[in-house]
Amino acid sequence: MNKPGVRKPTRAALSALIARSRFTAQYGFRVTAVADDACTIAMPFQQAYQRPGGTVNGPAYMAAADCAMWIAIKRHIGMEHDAVTSEMNTAFLNAARRETVYCTARILKLGKRIIYGTARCHDRKGRIFTHHTITYARLRK
Amino acid sequence: MNKPGVRKPTRAALSALIARSRFTAQYGFRVTAVADDACTIAMPFQQAYQRPGGTVNGPAYMAAADCAMWIAIKRHIGMEHDAVTSEMNTAFLNAARRETVYCTARILKLGKRIIYGTARCHDRKGRIFTHHTITYARLRK
Amino acid sequence: MNKPGVRKPTRAALSALIARSRFTAQYGFRVTAVADDACTIAMPFQQAYQRPGGTVNGPAYMAAADCAMWIAIKRHIGMEHDAVTSEMNTAFLNAARRETVYCTARILKLGKRIIYGTARCHDRKGRIFTHHTITYARLRK
Amino acid sequence: MNKPGVRKPTRAALSALIARSRFTAQYGFRVTAVADDACTIAMPFQQAYQRPGGTVNGPAYMAAADCAMWIAIKRHIGMEHDAVTSEMNTAFLNAARRETVYCTARILKLGKRIIYGTARCHDRKGRIFTHHTITYARLRK
Repeated sequence: MNKPGVRKPTRAALSALIARSRFTAQYGFRVTAVADDACTIAMPFQQAYQRPGGTVNGPAYMAAADCAMWIAIKRHIGMEHDAVTSEMNTAFLNAARRETVYCTARILKLGKRIIYGTARCHDRKGRIFTHHTITYARLRK
Repeated sequence: MNKPGVRKPTRAALSALIARSRFTAQYGFRVTAVADDACTIAMPFQQAYQRPGGTVNGPAYMAAADCAMWIAIKRHIGMEHDAVTSEMNTAFLNAARRETVYCTARILKLGKRIIYGTARCHDRKGRIFTHHTITYARLRK
Repeated sequence: MNKPGVRKPTRAALSALIARSRFTAQYGFRVTAVADDACTIAMPFQQAYQRPGGTVNGPAYMAAADCAMWIAIKRHIGMEHDAVTSEMNTAFLNAARRETVYCTARILKLGKRIIYGTARCHDRKGRIFTHHTITYARLRK
Repeated sequence: MNKPGVRKPTRAALSALIARSRFTAQYGFRVTAVADDACTIAMPFQQAYQRPGGTVNGPAYMAAADCAMWIAIKRHIGMEHDAVTSEMNTAFLNAARRETVYCTARILKLGKRIIYGTARCHDRKGRIFTHHTITYARLRK
């Protein structure tokens, strides 16, 4: 899926991108791994995510999945191109508690109009919390 | 889908429920319409929802859909029973800008184990922003 | 969502379209209602759809939903334009038995690139069997 | 995810199961690989799957995904237990032509009530055609 001529952003560049975007900044996401195959971010626990019973609420996982996928896409198409979420499907499989949630995104199709991939939220050891499929529509420059 | 013997919570009771739940309180949701057929909430605009370009970001709609569906479910099963989100599918159709987003949820199946319905985020005049299907799993008391 | 200048196909024209398409012909679909708001097709029961227990199997509903949505799209964009399914989400809510299944599709967004809508399979009286969301990508001429 | 005391069906037993189920028999599925990690079936090309343009139509992939997941589930829960599809989400990524389509299913959660996994249809070399997430509800004996 590598496009010749795309300058691939580094982990540092992608971390800076997240930090300066107001809509992701509130979550305190950190980029923990960047590769062509998969990108992973970390979402530290916040009191605001807490549901009754002490578990992390649904929108927090979905925000992490959306962000991890965006990072994976930027890695492939470069910082000067962009895409926006058009569909996201989420399954809530196990509940995270007061802990850091990791989210790993993989691209399955990098099309000219549509980019499709999966993301999964998991703990440090790989135990799955949520599974997502995500479609982004590429913006024309 | 009406269950005999269920005391249906009023709009006031459902509004109080949202206000005291920490994970929904941050959004400032208000319950604007409660009926057996459909329930609607309002999500006032917040700076934190803003994506580059001035549009509302994806997780905000998904939080509203999850909440509107929860209100619709509580209306049907009563305050003393509960259910948790197991799946949510979202399509982003049009972007909201600096405006109040409304979200209307309808239940299509009220099963003994699974509750399934749709939600749509829209503006005051009914223009659609997002469409969701949502599955909740009932908790056994 | 009406586009000026589109010649809207009639029910007869849409029925003929289904009958001559080999991949839909096997199902024996009939177009039962055509309007801008919603289109409905009927799928007569066939032995080949039968699961253990006498219920209709999943792919039959999904084929009906895909076809009903295609008819609804053709109604809006005209016979000379086309679109192909890019995503379909299905929830199986109640089982049909040895009976005709109806499927009604509605378009929620008719975009330049993407068409999104819902379909539901139901019996003659409106009891729901399955619910679908469907995304079609428009083909450029 | 291994349950102690479950006698795991072999590839021969799972092949026989598919062959005798009328609703899968029409497709001519063959079980090509069975392991705890993933199960793969093959769907030989049939004229009836053909869309205009010579590509395989959508319901054929969805039938294959449903079947591959069912085989993966039977492998884990044993022949004497069963489960039925409750939700299936599908993305159509690339079109198969007049060729055998393979479908590989993996289970991500084997719960007491819900089983969730992914399936992907692909060619002999692994090129992806469709991606699916599938939820099965376990039947109580």
